[in-house]
Amino acid sequence: MNSRRDFLQKLTASATLIPFLQSDAFAVSGIKGQVYDGPVLRVAIMGLGYYAGRVANAMRNCKKAKLVGVISGTPSKITAWRAKYDIPEKNCYNYETFDAIKNNPDIDAVYIITPNGLHKDEAIRVAKAGKHVISEKPMALNAAEGEEMIAACKAAGVKLLVGYRMHFEPKTLEIIRMRKDGEFGKVLFFQGLSGFTIGDPTQWRLNKTLSGGGSIMDIGIYSVNGARYMIGEDPIWVTAQETKTDHVKFKEGIDETIQFQLGFPSGAVASCLSTYSMNNLDKFFLDAEKGWAEMQPSTGYGPIQGRTFKGELKFPHVEHQTIQMDEMSDIILHGKSPIVPVDGEEALKDLKIIDAIYLAASTGKKVDLKL
Amino acid sequence: MNSRRDFLQKLTASATLIPFLQSDAFAVSGIKGQVYDGPVLRVAIMGLGYYAGRVANAMRNCKKAKLVGVISGTPSKITAWRAKYDIPEKNCYNYETFDAIKNNPDIDAVYIITPNGLHKDEAIRVAKAGKHVISEKPMALNAAEGEEMIAACKAAGVKLLVGYRMHFEPKTLEIIRMRKDGEFGKVLFFQGLSGFTIGDPTQWRLNKTLSGGGSIMDIGIYSVNGARYMIGEDPIWVTAQETKTDHVKFKEGIDETIQFQLGFPSGAVASCLSTYSMNNLDKFFLDAEKGWAEMQPSTGYGPIQGRTFKGELKFPHVEHQTIQMDEMSDIILHGKSPIVPVDGEEALKDLKIIDAIYLAASTGKKVDLKL
Repeated sequence: MNSRRDFLQKLTASATLIPFLQSDAFAVSGIKGQVYDGPVLRVAIMGLGYYAGRVANAMRNCKKAKLVGVISGTPSKITAWRAKYDIPEKNCYNYETFDAIKNNPDIDAVYIITPNGLHKDEAIRVAKAGKHVISEKPMALNAAEGEEMIAACKAAGVKLLVGYRMHFEPKTLEIIRMRKDGEFGKVLFFQGLSGFTIGDPTQWRLNKTLSGGGSIMDIGIYSVNGARYMIGEDPIWVTAQETKTDHVKFKEGIDETIQFQLGFPSGAVASCLSTYSMNNLDKFFLDAEKGWAEMQPSTGYGPIQGRTFKGELKFPHVEHQTIQMDEMSDIILHGKSPIVPVDGEEALKDLKIIDAIYLAASTGKKVDLKL
Repeated sequence: MNSRRDFLQKLTASATLIPFLQSDAFAVSGIKGQVYDGPVLRVAIMGLGYYAGRVANAMRNCKKAKLVGVISGTPSKITAWRAKYDIPEKNCYNYETFDAIKNNPDIDAVYIITPNGLHKDEAIRVAKAGKHVISEKPMALNAAEGEEMIAACKAAGVKLLVGYRMHFEPKTLEIIRMRKDGEFGKVLFFQGLSGFTIGDPTQWRLNKTLSGGGSIMDIGIYSVNGARYMIGEDPIWVTAQETKTDHVKFKEGIDETIQFQLGFPSGAVASCLSTYSMNNLDKFFLDAEKGWAEMQPSTGYGPIQGRTFKGELKFPHVEHQTIQMDEMSDIILHGKSPIVPVDGEEALKDLKIIDAIYLAASTGKKVDLKL
């Protein structure tokens, strides 16, 4: 059983796909009820696991992005996806053949949704094939790998984006807007609790080579990233404490529970929890001089629930991956700047923080950061 | 302006004093709607500041405790209190004369509600006068002082209790009951956020000699103590990070904001925030294998609001100090054991944790604890 999947699915079970008509944040993208007749980002998905299926389904409702190809090591999956998503045979590759995507004019970008430990090499190959790279998060196992990916994409002249779906989520963006507009006053404290009880002990997420770590690489990264976009600054120090109660399930290098704290230039602080051993922990809290914001669930697949000192945030739920891929189309094809970045540099910051969290947890020392 | 007072008062402004008829936890104390005709604890209050007034007012509704005397260095206050609370002149003392309380057969106990730095010497003098000691919290400036107080009371054969009003609060006790009865399953995580924006920079709470420290001595102690009664264990390690943004208001030795983390023998962890620079932060969250509990406000003067995975906790609000003093009467006069201890040993644990928090914050190192 994959409890993460169950958890994230449960959060979205009651969600109806409501046409995305209300958020001015996206009005410029042209999907505000208008018929879209501009260019479409043609995407191949690499790695046909659970989350890839979620992305593919959500992309059915995209207006500016379209699933046109797949890369998989499992022929039966390719057959099934071809049928389900109407994908031409010429846009299907496996891990031996996908460099040939270079010669395929019908694919613009490859969305890498494979285990973390494979992202770097795959991204570099995609970049060398001249296609834009979209990587699922964490972008890589550590900051050094992330830097390699950024350099490779730069050298190849392709864009590198990372699947930060919350950066397009309307309630999240409304809180960010309120912060930027000064409605909260000085931001003082962020708390992020991110966790779930992980199931199958044989899954790749519990394999250090493939995952690069435990809960923090998978779910804690939401609090790492959320601390930055909620506070609106990059941290300058990190402290962390690891707790392990199950040494069989959580082997050396796989964190079960990590508490971490971040300090920011303004004096704001963050206190976060990442865990693979607690049920459905998905809470953000922002405290500021003039007000506060709470989100629960804060980063699940939705619907997100948010309220501030001014009241409940009321935006209809839209599949995060639908908005993400439409927005990424505009970023890649039109150079649009998203409200919160989703590029390699943005992802690199999270990897640097995660590196520092692991260092702080293992040494017991405060780690200074310069992002 | 004392913002703490405003904050705590606001929390209780809408509260109506409802006769305390419903909680089985207190049925044994005989106040369940019955006429009480047993012995009454006769109390003198030392230090006639704001909180003393709150205690005195709340004691008007006590059935088993009665305010009968005062100790103050300000004659005009004594005059005012005598009139307001009908206190005989023979039960009034000042700080020079109060050792003579030894010869006053009409006073059983002295409730010390003075600045923290005075508690130890005053408690020792009260003990030597043969009267039971009730000290406001924190019991003392540090664990060493706390141990002196415990030894002095033991030597004098008097009881030493500390004003942990939350230990008698019905919603708090219901969560503790649920935990003890296994309704939450294994407890995993506690989060305590305790803070407010402190006002007048000249107040004794911002004077190291009188307060012993900053926010953690005053408001953070609620999270220190709450972590223990909510989780039901004593911590074995502490880490802490201090952040100071205002070095004028918060001088050397006066903490403005401290984040601290606690680890417990079971593997449960706690993540807490103590601050003098955020408005009205008063939240507890307990996460466990089978369920959770949230309290907000969690430790203000009330009404406390609590809910668990089973629903909202519905107990009418009763002034905390009324219950506390009635219960302390039973503890002192009848040797009753409260559900959560309120004695010197209990308070000493908090002081040891606070000592460790300051040490951890200043050294940046994890501090092991054995309570």
